[in-house]
Amino acid sequence: MMTSVLCEALGLRYPIFQGGMAWVSEAGLAAAVSNAGGLGVISAMNLDGDYLRTQIRKCRTLTDRPFGVNIMLMSPHVREVARVCVEERPAVVTTGAGLPNAYMKDWIAAGIRVIPVVPSTAMARLVERAGAFAVIAEGGESGGHVGDLSTMTLVPQVADAVKIPVLAAGGIADGRGVAAAMMLGASGVQCGTVFLCATECAVHETYKQKVIAAGDIDTVVTGKRLGHAVRSLKTPFTRRYLEKEYDPDISGDELEALGVGALRKAAMEGDVDNGCFLAGQAAAMVHAVRPAAEIIQQMFAEAETLLRGAPQWVK
Amino acid sequence: MMTSVLCEALGLRYPIFQGGMAWVSEAGLAAAVSNAGGLGVISAMNLDGDYLRTQIRKCRTLTDRPFGVNIMLMSPHVREVARVCVEERPAVVTTGAGLPNAYMKDWIAAGIRVIPVVPSTAMARLVERAGAFAVIAEGGESGGHVGDLSTMTLVPQVADAVKIPVLAAGGIADGRGVAAAMMLGASGVQCGTVFLCATECAVHETYKQKVIAAGDIDTVVTGKRLGHAVRSLKTPFTRRYLEKEYDPDISGDELEALGVGALRKAAMEGDVDNGCFLAGQAAAMVHAVRPAAEIIQQMFAEAETLLRGAPQWVK
Repeated sequence: MMTSVLCEALGLRYPIFQGGMAWVSEAGLAAAVSNAGGLGVISAMNLDGDYLRTQIRKCRTLTDRPFGVNIMLMSPHVREVARVCVEERPAVVTTGAGLPNAYMKDWIAAGIRVIPVVPSTAMARLVERAGAFAVIAEGGESGGHVGDLSTMTLVPQVADAVKIPVLAAGGIADGRGVAAAMMLGASGVQCGTVFLCATECAVHETYKQKVIAAGDIDTVVTGKRLGHAVRSLKTPFTRRYLEKEYDPDISGDELEALGVGALRKAAMEGDVDNGCFLAGQAAAMVHAVRPAAEIIQQMFAEAETLLRGAPQWVK
Repeated sequence: MMTSVLCEALGLRYPIFQGGMAWVSEAGLAAAVSNAGGLGVISAMNLDGDYLRTQIRKCRTLTDRPFGVNIMLMSPHVREVARVCVEERPAVVTTGAGLPNAYMKDWIAAGIRVIPVVPSTAMARLVERAGAFAVIAEGGESGGHVGDLSTMTLVPQVADAVKIPVLAAGGIADGRGVAAAMMLGASGVQCGTVFLCATECAVHETYKQKVIAAGDIDTVVTGKRLGHAVRSLKTPFTRRYLEKEYDPDISGDELEALGVGALRKAAMEGDVDNGCFLAGQAAAMVHAVRPAAEIIQQMFAEAETLLRGAPQWVK
């Protein structure tokens, strides 16, 4: 078993969080990950407080293990879902796409561990000062919203910048990634793309098959022009979007409109022409649909073997 | 001491290559790295065969250790410098910005170990088939010419794709990066940015100070429109270039002309307004100008401590 301050503090068997993915991270997946000994995370998406409350309560019927909620700070319902967290008190709130400081005092007062995703050392310092329990340093090789720094350079820099624990995210799909993250200064990892292909994940089967089929060069970043870059699988949608992204005759509003509904079409309908299939570069290392427990156990068995064997590199 | 097939095969004390950097990787730096127990590498840049021959012969007066030559395959003099390598027989030829297969037979026949930089698993397989001794899997967090994949995702995939040894490059600046690279499946590392700030590196002092001053978010990628993306420090030059890169009124030729001489102005003149200071995201982890031997010794002392201590992550 791996040791980590995260396991001790949060009651986990494995220091792994499942990423909060819109249209993907529902109660069923979160409960499966938590039951397997990691931290399952429900995504509040862009939906309202009632959706989140229903998901949290459903998750509680599926597991008695701790789980988390991910708040996407650009959500139009952010204040409402933040309030639902205070009322429902998940063990952890993770946040993405912004600075959560306005909500942190209330969450912390409710006994919630706040663990923001950060793309830079500056943001890591800001959330540490506001009382974050840990930070997730996420490299731009991840899926969904991405920053500019890579996992390899962001994790050690964040580890130097803050005293709280650091989780590494971005590009981690197997035990090699977990062991590397520990060497870089992390106390655990967050994985998104690998859990897209968990048996318990409710996304459309086509989505899972596209992730499994993806090779190393099959993801692309779109949305830079609008200031919210996201990584997804290369598809007819991303080809059309990229053609227009730098076309000066296309307005920002038109571009924004192009993307509306594309995540839902991917996750719910498996629409290969119009869907936006968010996934990280780690997609190329996902080869099968497997139960969350099997994914986690194999990943950590590999990591433990690598870490135990590491001294053989030195003579 | 770290053990690695690279040390045994190439007669190195440390499994580290110094990256081939135009206007930076001259005989003096290469000899310093080789004397310190790594593999120093002379860059053939865009210059002709006479320049390279002079540099190789100068390096031989400065060290009796093995060293390498880096051939940038987009150089207008590529056939000539390839021929000089056959004649002068450096221990290693590394290649960048393309597929070196046309030259590999002659180099291998001359007893040279060919070790190409690869940005994808497909290219790794191609050069393995052509007789490469090893490959350098370089993530896009590196400086200079960059691919799309990150070190964290590229290295394990290349390690799975080929049987020859893999070096990890991109974002490695200290012992944490070295230890992480080993966990990802590498047998060694290549570092560029850290050696920019070696005492023996002949670049302008301003260049070194700019690297040392760089923070985590201070590099940027330009040149995507022209199909040769490069990472450098954010400067007035990159700001002006980026403004024009997606301006449809600017032709590709005009854009190309903008960049002419910018590397030389950075490296030779320290021209902060017009220079292009190539550097990777690892710049933020470089804090001082130090002798190459000290850089390498500290990096591997850190890595060895981390690797020896790795089993303590497992209980």
